[in-house]
Amino acid sequence: MENKNILRYLDPGDFEKIKEFSKDKETPMLVINLNKIEKKFDELKKHLSYAKIYYAVKANPNNDVIKVLADRGSNFDIATVFELNQLLELGISADRMSYGNTIKKEKDIAYAYEKGVRLFATDSESDLSKIARQAPNSKVFFRILCDGSGADWPLSRKFGAHLDVIFNLAIKAKKMGLEPYGLSFHVGSQQRDIGQWDNAIAQCKYMFDSLSEADIDLKMINIGGGFPSDYLQPSNSIEVYAKEVTRFLAEDFGDNFPEIIVEPGRSITGDAGVIVTEAVLISQKSIANHYSWLYLDIGKFGGLIETLDEAIKYPIYTESSAVLGFEENEDNLKEYIIAGPTCDSMDILYEDNKYKLDKDLKEGDRIYILTTGAYTSSYSAICFNGIPPLKTYTVRF
Amino acid sequence: MENKNILRYLDPGDFEKIKEFSKDKETPMLVINLNKIEKKFDELKKHLSYAKIYYAVKANPNNDVIKVLADRGSNFDIATVFELNQLLELGISADRMSYGNTIKKEKDIAYAYEKGVRLFATDSESDLSKIARQAPNSKVFFRILCDGSGADWPLSRKFGAHLDVIFNLAIKAKKMGLEPYGLSFHVGSQQRDIGQWDNAIAQCKYMFDSLSEADIDLKMINIGGGFPSDYLQPSNSIEVYAKEVTRFLAEDFGDNFPEIIVEPGRSITGDAGVIVTEAVLISQKSIANHYSWLYLDIGKFGGLIETLDEAIKYPIYTESSAVLGFEENEDNLKEYIIAGPTCDSMDILYEDNKYKLDKDLKEGDRIYILTTGAYTSSYSAICFNGIPPLKTYTVRF
Repeated sequence: MENKNILRYLDPGDFEKIKEFSKDKETPMLVINLNKIEKKFDELKKHLSYAKIYYAVKANPNNDVIKVLADRGSNFDIATVFELNQLLELGISADRMSYGNTIKKEKDIAYAYEKGVRLFATDSESDLSKIARQAPNSKVFFRILCDGSGADWPLSRKFGAHLDVIFNLAIKAKKMGLEPYGLSFHVGSQQRDIGQWDNAIAQCKYMFDSLSEADIDLKMINIGGGFPSDYLQPSNSIEVYAKEVTRFLAEDFGDNFPEIIVEPGRSITGDAGVIVTEAVLISQKSIANHYSWLYLDIGKFGGLIETLDEAIKYPIYTESSAVLGFEENEDNLKEYIIAGPTCDSMDILYEDNKYKLDKDLKEGDRIYILTTGAYTSSYSAICFNGIPPLKTYTVRF
Repeated sequence: MENKNILRYLDPGDFEKIKEFSKDKETPMLVINLNKIEKKFDELKKHLSYAKIYYAVKANPNNDVIKVLADRGSNFDIATVFELNQLLELGISADRMSYGNTIKKEKDIAYAYEKGVRLFATDSESDLSKIARQAPNSKVFFRILCDGSGADWPLSRKFGAHLDVIFNLAIKAKKMGLEPYGLSFHVGSQQRDIGQWDNAIAQCKYMFDSLSEADIDLKMINIGGGFPSDYLQPSNSIEVYAKEVTRFLAEDFGDNFPEIIVEPGRSITGDAGVIVTEAVLISQKSIANHYSWLYLDIGKFGGLIETLDEAIKYPIYTESSAVLGFEENEDNLKEYIIAGPTCDSMDILYEDNKYKLDKDLKEGDRIYILTTGAYTSSYSAICFNGIPPLKTYTVRF
């Protein structure tokens, strides 16, 4: 893999600040720049000014991250009552939350309702009945099945239902005393094919019209998340995404947009995080190999689970990277297979995609894994191989 | 997937005892039967009486499990200094430990040596030099690269080195003041092809002879782990494994066995664990589907990561299973796709391998996932989707 110039990912000077901040601390650690999170939130707000933002807490549930976004006026998409409790403890009221998980225990729906949640996602009759029993008069939105083609971390058939099922659910919701409020979809995380939103919005339009004929007027579309972070694979800016999504909405709904909800997670926090790790061991398996194995003190079970099947390709830099300027100095580089520190054989980060890094890399050198602010720390194993979960520091640079 | 009769996995009455023990407790939970762990340990000891057992702590690091095995006279294979500290706190002395991870920081080697560890695995020159500097005069054993063919949770090229590298390492170890003590290999976890041990032992014999010509007399072979637990896929008993491995050793070494170390993990604790979970949601995605989706309150991130690629197929039973008697009552069964509770789309346990379970299964019903005592609780994510790590209870039935 070719790393691009580090300046693509970090503002000038930020790399030095992260080095300085982390230098006396034990690796591995995740450093989250709260300023960058605010910037990402503001950017999205600016480009999708008509949308209500519900930050997907699961992407990074760090308290400082949540507080910064709450202060900025964000709403929150929660997956469980555990996340609900966390937000309540931070003083965020339940009317700013959407219970976005379609897999819910009946007692959890009751608990959320009791705490004030009035907006629920659903995609099955059974879940709908539970909401009707435990959260009367609440707003429900129906999740449409998308296949997630084109996403680097694609969705599966786990969530959402076909349009025929959705149609029936909306009819039943009304009969059960709920408010059939809108539709949602999710095009897959790190979705780089913007056209996927076009398809999904067209399906929403079709459902709006069909249900209108059955006297149900939906009011909202939750266009989900899926906006990208800046990994090695090229992706468009949030500005381009927003412009295109707006165009698709206008094509189907004219000037009369329904209420639009957006649920960003990765695109808000991904770019704000840097994992600082250490080269534990550098070795060659055979005398004839042209590449080396580089073992870090973090791996798949320490927070980098999204390297499964090498799906997400993080930008990775060594201490000297900012000086080297990668593209220009091929002679200073060599190929590495990168692996984690555990005794689990699947704890390899990149083997098919070997990384070109400083050929003089030494054990004990620090290595910086960029764009690691989303879907890392909360995935970290509790104690696999005895290793404690990834520690997070929040900073403002 | 066809579940086999539950009596294959649990002694008569044990299923009822587990139901009774867990019935007033919150799901999900892992229940570990310490009696079964002792039984498995004793069985291995009986069939491989000439071997020294080093329990692989990573398989299940629960304190009660460790204590039971320590009382039984087990030694311990540790992966990190975190595991070392845990064992020291339980009063287990360092001379009963082998530092089996070939990926080690220099300061961790120094720490282990200071605490009394004198037996280290290695597979690279760099690691060997660190051991020589920080743990002088220690015994080292060299890990041979095995490809793990035939294993359900195969190894990769992450660990071990080719024989040419091993030869040189042994020569260097002696020069550096270490004792080149033996060889190790690992045929892959849940290895169902016993012939893999034959190949690996033959390589060891070759290395013993080659190094003997260079005046290095190795004394030990660490035959690793890899002995199976009882999942849905058929496997042989530990008795058959032991008999075959003994035969392979005799073929190569005659009556004069070297010291044999074995590092069981999964085969000791796997069968002793039952995860108790609940059906959160049962739904159909489309009216025409013949199968349903069954969502549990535990999934890939709650401890069932070994369902990745549906590699490990756990026996799964519903409350009525023991009564139903699965093979005989096809009419009472239907197919389910089984998924976890998180908003992550990859949190699906079995989709290609649909499970036949009670067709009248209801939400809220309890479901029992058997043979889950190894590589579950310690893999559990710290707080993904806010869900706390899997809770373990130890019992004696």
